[in-house]
Amino acid sequence: MKFGYFDDSQMEYVITTPRTPRPWINYLGSQNFFGLISNTAGGYCFYKDARLRRLTRYRYNQVPVDTGGRYFYINDGGAVWSPSWQPVQAELDGYECRHGLGYTRITGVKNDLKVEALFFVPLDHDCEIHRVTLTNQGKEPKSFKLFSLVEFCLWNAYDDMTNFQRNFNTGEVEVDGSVIYHKTEYRERRNHFAFYGVNHPLAGFDTDRHSFTGLYNGFHNPEVVVNGQSRNSVADGWSPIASHCLAITLAPGESRELIFVLGYVENDPEQKWERPGVINKTKARRILADYASPDRVGQALADLRDYWTGLLGVYTVASADAKLNRMVNIWNPYQCMVTFNLSRSASYFESGIGRGIGFRDSNQDILGFVGMVPERARARILDLAATQFPDGSAYHQYQPLTKRGNADAGSGFNDDPLWLLYSVIAYLKESGDYAILDEVVPFNNDPAVTATLFEHLECSIRHVWEHRGPHGLPLIGRADWNDCLNLNCYSTTPDESFQTCTSKDGKTAESVFVAGMLVHIGPEYARLCRKLGRDDAAASVLEKVAAIRQAVLDAGFDGEWFLRAYDDSGRKVGSRENDEGQIFIEPQGMCGMARIGEEKGLTLKALDAVKQRLDTAHGLRLVNPAYSGYRLELGEISTYPPGYKENAGIFCHNNPWVMIAETMVGRAERAFEYYRKIAPAYREEISDLHRMEPYVYSQMITGSDAKRHGEAKNSWLTGTAAWNFVAITQYILGVRPDFEGLVVDPCLPAELAEVTVTRKFRGVAYRIQIANRRSGHYRLTVAGREVDGKVIPLTAGAGPVVEVYCET
Amino acid sequence: MKFGYFDDSQMEYVITTPRTPRPWINYLGSQNFFGLISNTAGGYCFYKDARLRRLTRYRYNQVPVDTGGRYFYINDGGAVWSPSWQPVQAELDGYECRHGLGYTRITGVKNDLKVEALFFVPLDHDCEIHRVTLTNQGKEPKSFKLFSLVEFCLWNAYDDMTNFQRNFNTGEVEVDGSVIYHKTEYRERRNHFAFYGVNHPLAGFDTDRHSFTGLYNGFHNPEVVVNGQSRNSVADGWSPIASHCLAITLAPGESRELIFVLGYVENDPEQKWERPGVINKTKARRILADYASPDRVGQALADLRDYWTGLLGVYTVASADAKLNRMVNIWNPYQCMVTFNLSRSASYFESGIGRGIGFRDSNQDILGFVGMVPERARARILDLAATQFPDGSAYHQYQPLTKRGNADAGSGFNDDPLWLLYSVIAYLKESGDYAILDEVVPFNNDPAVTATLFEHLECSIRHVWEHRGPHGLPLIGRADWNDCLNLNCYSTTPDESFQTCTSKDGKTAESVFVAGMLVHIGPEYARLCRKLGRDDAAASVLEKVAAIRQAVLDAGFDGEWFLRAYDDSGRKVGSRENDEGQIFIEPQGMCGMARIGEEKGLTLKALDAVKQRLDTAHGLRLVNPAYSGYRLELGEISTYPPGYKENAGIFCHNNPWVMIAETMVGRAERAFEYYRKIAPAYREEISDLHRMEPYVYSQMITGSDAKRHGEAKNSWLTGTAAWNFVAITQYILGVRPDFEGLVVDPCLPAELAEVTVTRKFRGVAYRIQIANRRSGHYRLTVAGREVDGKVIPLTAGAGPVVEVYCET
Repeated sequence: MKFGYFDDSQMEYVITTPRTPRPWINYLGSQNFFGLISNTAGGYCFYKDARLRRLTRYRYNQVPVDTGGRYFYINDGGAVWSPSWQPVQAELDGYECRHGLGYTRITGVKNDLKVEALFFVPLDHDCEIHRVTLTNQGKEPKSFKLFSLVEFCLWNAYDDMTNFQRNFNTGEVEVDGSVIYHKTEYRERRNHFAFYGVNHPLAGFDTDRHSFTGLYNGFHNPEVVVNGQSRNSVADGWSPIASHCLAITLAPGESRELIFVLGYVENDPEQKWERPGVINKTKARRILADYASPDRVGQALADLRDYWTGLLGVYTVASADAKLNRMVNIWNPYQCMVTFNLSRSASYFESGIGRGIGFRDSNQDILGFVGMVPERARARILDLAATQFPDGSAYHQYQPLTKRGNADAGSGFNDDPLWLLYSVIAYLKESGDYAILDEVVPFNNDPAVTATLFEHLECSIRHVWEHRGPHGLPLIGRADWNDCLNLNCYSTTPDESFQTCTSKDGKTAESVFVAGMLVHIGPEYARLCRKLGRDDAAASVLEKVAAIRQAVLDAGFDGEWFLRAYDDSGRKVGSRENDEGQIFIEPQGMCGMARIGEEKGLTLKALDAVKQRLDTAHGLRLVNPAYSGYRLELGEISTYPPGYKENAGIFCHNNPWVMIAETMVGRAERAFEYYRKIAPAYREEISDLHRMEPYVYSQMITGSDAKRHGEAKNSWLTGTAAWNFVAITQYILGVRPDFEGLVVDPCLPAELAEVTVTRKFRGVAYRIQIANRRSGHYRLTVAGREVDGKVIPLTAGAGPVVEVYCET
Repeated sequence: MKFGYFDDSQMEYVITTPRTPRPWINYLGSQNFFGLISNTAGGYCFYKDARLRRLTRYRYNQVPVDTGGRYFYINDGGAVWSPSWQPVQAELDGYECRHGLGYTRITGVKNDLKVEALFFVPLDHDCEIHRVTLTNQGKEPKSFKLFSLVEFCLWNAYDDMTNFQRNFNTGEVEVDGSVIYHKTEYRERRNHFAFYGVNHPLAGFDTDRHSFTGLYNGFHNPEVVVNGQSRNSVADGWSPIASHCLAITLAPGESRELIFVLGYVENDPEQKWERPGVINKTKARRILADYASPDRVGQALADLRDYWTGLLGVYTVASADAKLNRMVNIWNPYQCMVTFNLSRSASYFESGIGRGIGFRDSNQDILGFVGMVPERARARILDLAATQFPDGSAYHQYQPLTKRGNADAGSGFNDDPLWLLYSVIAYLKESGDYAILDEVVPFNNDPAVTATLFEHLECSIRHVWEHRGPHGLPLIGRADWNDCLNLNCYSTTPDESFQTCTSKDGKTAESVFVAGMLVHIGPEYARLCRKLGRDDAAASVLEKVAAIRQAVLDAGFDGEWFLRAYDDSGRKVGSRENDEGQIFIEPQGMCGMARIGEEKGLTLKALDAVKQRLDTAHGLRLVNPAYSGYRLELGEISTYPPGYKENAGIFCHNNPWVMIAETMVGRAERAFEYYRKIAPAYREEISDLHRMEPYVYSQMITGSDAKRHGEAKNSWLTGTAAWNFVAITQYILGVRPDFEGLVVDPCLPAELAEVTVTRKFRGVAYRIQIANRRSGHYRLTVAGREVDGKVIPLTAGAGPVVEVYCET
């Protein structure tokens, strides 16, 4: 069952009912100002940091779901409704929500009045624009009142939802003409305020929530809207809001465009005040003036569209498979960009206010995003490396506002160091900017302790090498990529988090997965070192890779598949010897990509075991059989009910590792089958089961042990986006950057006989026609000339477009 | 304007409209199981620890306010309503809420159906009983459906409202007959579950919230109730609830009594399971069986009433002032008991989930509570002392479940150590149990580092003595009683809490308030030491008291009133030299009680300054003039808008210190005037302004600088309860325990010409008739015999009641 459709020409997903199986959302913003918005106008916005600079209030896990957002109300002769359906939930004569690239357009029609609300964050100011277009579709003149509503968050989202003893005493606002300024705590340590204005005179306003709603009414039936009359309340303490009231009259057929701006301003300490107690509004007025006219707003929207068209033009595909095309050309790179912007810090349901920018997360996000704006990847890489410690380990998260490591989020994840190699190598292959390796970067944000980025990478490798266990495999630490496999925690207390509880400095528990990572990325690092003339470093890492590859061969293969780990007692994890948790997906994917033992057939064996033991109708499970009870020596993975999360859920992040490994052994059909099972556009028809948005990946789909097998959870901000983009674009379609040029090495199923990929790479656009003959013979021609090997050399072409032909 | 009335004969406050100016609440429970319940059945319950063992979910700062609780719904032929008005908000034909001592009874009538819901926590089991009495008041038979609803919290209230990525995957329940068991995470580290059952067969049930409400409906219009048909949903992940559906038919005039039990059970590890995956329900079944009959429930309610009657019988007054009587006899001691039970850990609006048991808080709570159950005060004193460090300082809070100090809540409050002296001395005067001083108590909960309780007290004194500043006054540390006067913090970053941010180990900033504390309590401690034969310790503390008294006289008086402090630069705080914050209430009250410089008239001067500069129509402000902007060197106090909280709000906790000081200089009228201004029963008529419950104190009433002067905030759990109880009972009515017997030293206004106090003290009941002649002559007779001095000797009487007559 579907709840909308893809409009590929507009690059939009069009939702045709407000009653989606969950609120389906979009992200607004691209630099510093971000918003989340649902198909019924729910959501919130923030400046840079979703926790520390939350501008509007949002309540997670609400009843009814998704209450609180940017709302408009119509009181049309006593009939009260909202064009976004929520929060009033009055039935509409017409409803449509179009989620586009960086904007959302919601249209509601009732009683001959059409209200279209367009929401976007422009490229050049820290604000959201809400453009409301009112049209009288009837034959009579219409007079009605339009009310706006946002509820302000008192800046720190965590504090805002817990420290009421303080918060209920601090709220302050100013009202100036048609603009409401939220200035809570501006008097003290803060130098910032928010504002919400409209380019139209007001019939009234409210800034105090209880005055607006009444004490026992809600956002769905606020007294002010029901009565059709603002109270001109000025908040003192409690909960500041901004609500404008506009009295509008429209002739038959007439349209009116109103521009609301919700913005954020910081002032220098010496310029904070206009006069004692009155904030300096100069910057806010400048922004409001800039968007006072519809023309200027139209231009800002066009600029935004150009921005996105540019970004998405880096990699496009034309094939007979419309779902493939829309994933590769629009939605997957769009999700990659959003995920890169926010890491995991601003979720709609699942993350609340606890997360910052993840070290492991962002390094992987870069893999999907780096082609679009390499210079932003560069900056992020340097930020991430600066949260590393001199021994190569790292804070697991940092807050984007302060860029400092967040000790509350834990550390000691022994895969973290190696992910920095992945991002740096991907960046170098994309950009050729080797100078980044000479950048001087602090450790732990301490300017007194620094090293070049190259030395940071060496630290990462050293960390793995110097933390090996009895079998010569890397120690797992608190956990590796699988946060929930906690082999050193031994937690017996229900009130502690596995991510931060005491973890012994164990010398026994080893990770086959981290071993696979080093064997996978190490040789690429060696190639880099040789390019740099650092043959010593190249030789050194290859020695380590060889040793660890051998350790995996000796102690990491269980006969039919790769082991997952050794626990703290030296017992196998993910082995046929276990009663539960016999096979894990991660080492099969990673060791497969690293081609460990491929020559002995181990990759094929392992991938066949994945097919046989982990595959379901909705993707590949993480582990099987699921753990039925808590295991002290394994930790959090065994605390989840079977079929959920790491305990045999379908973790979409690691499915693409298996797809990539399948392309390495040439099994195109199977790689693509796995791709289609979890790619959201292919799941659109089962939206009633899948529940989450059909245009972006979710972190997890419940496994076959769960009661509702196939239900997705935690959409949008997940490493799933980057790795699936890598799998489909670089390994299935097979076009990927390398140090020496663009590799063309497709591994396509029969159904994709003819495919054209365009790729902008280092200033050149390549149009690559792929003829998928499956002949066993590979042929590559660049600008009409045949080339040896599978790489389009960097010197191969100039001019706007280079034509490439590849036959397999 | 009133929203109800006091029913003194039933010891109830009767609320006659569901639309109170805020939800007006009651606390249920007295030992380990506690609940909070509003007059519309909102609220939550928990076992021992409001943060770590929250049983039902409550959302703070909700829109509409106070959604979520223990709800009953009626579907009577399609008409849907709730007897508590909320959450449906259907208009009722009749409504009444009676908040009594440990129980709440809510009655709603509609369409000839009367539904009375009685909520209480019995004395002998860890559960809430919800007794629902249904009566057909009409002339026709009635058939309808009754639905119950609670939403389960996933145990840790903080985690429950932030860690959705985990929570949405963990929920599990079992349904067995008419009982719904909530067992989330029971499979792992937890050994506990909750249950909600009813003594009646079910027509259906629901345990999954979205199945019950529908995705876009709320608690006010759940689909299941609207449709009149349960879905028999079994929660897997998302949000587990418990809803029973009962089909009921009543003949005209017929009544039916149903008993719902919401309980908590812990099982031994080896007895967790009935069979694999099925929880052992033995203990739950035992509780359910115990309350299966109305008789047994009636008995449990009678037991509860007896329990409270016993507690409240310790101190009673009979006077011509009904408000005074109900405060002293019912509501103030009731609030003291609740506050003692929970410290500040379980608030309805203002505290959320962040608080544990306060060190300073609980030591003061004991002052109000100790007469009622001295043995519980004893246990608490030992718990508190165990969170002290060897240098006398202490964790500022600890979690009641673990009894361990909570590092997140900060430390370094230099008043903390001395409050332990207050509680121990109060306990000894009440009980005569000097053996407590020999109890061996750990420091920082470390069994390896211990000392006797007496030595703990010595550590407290030593801490003050060894932390003195340039004027010989005690150093203030992070802050003293006034959390918000942070003289060593210098916080410039808006995202840090003053309670936990870096505070320098300053050697300059001094507190006149802590000086006053030592001079106030030190001589009492010396008396104790002499009783113990510890003349050395007595001499030692009196030497310190003398030195600090002299330091206050030399450097702590500002000409007309006591200074508040010296800041980190050695500048005066709370001085006429300041432009703002010239006078603070705390040192006037504390130095007044300590009688520092009374012989020179300083007490009178200071108290007159309080009257002149701090008094308002709604009580005494904390400071004046308010701070208009942030002051880096003063900290949080200057971050609040004027009139709120510490920045010139009326902090009801410190008003009684001034009342007590006024009695010490014999100004009865003024002491009683201050008492009446803030005592809630006297504010009942202005409930529309006051807003909070008229039967319990609030922490603060907004000061005259605030826009709504006279509005109260943060009711129930506040040290205000204890100190006002001390002021009215021990100093205005003047009956207080001492080491040698019961002191009778009233200081009554003219209007209270004849007053009778009864006091149970060390096994004897004294009936004390006070004739307030204001003659200047004092006369005391005990059992007919005149006594020298103002103390009823311990040996004075035996038998059930000793008659005492006091004339002044």
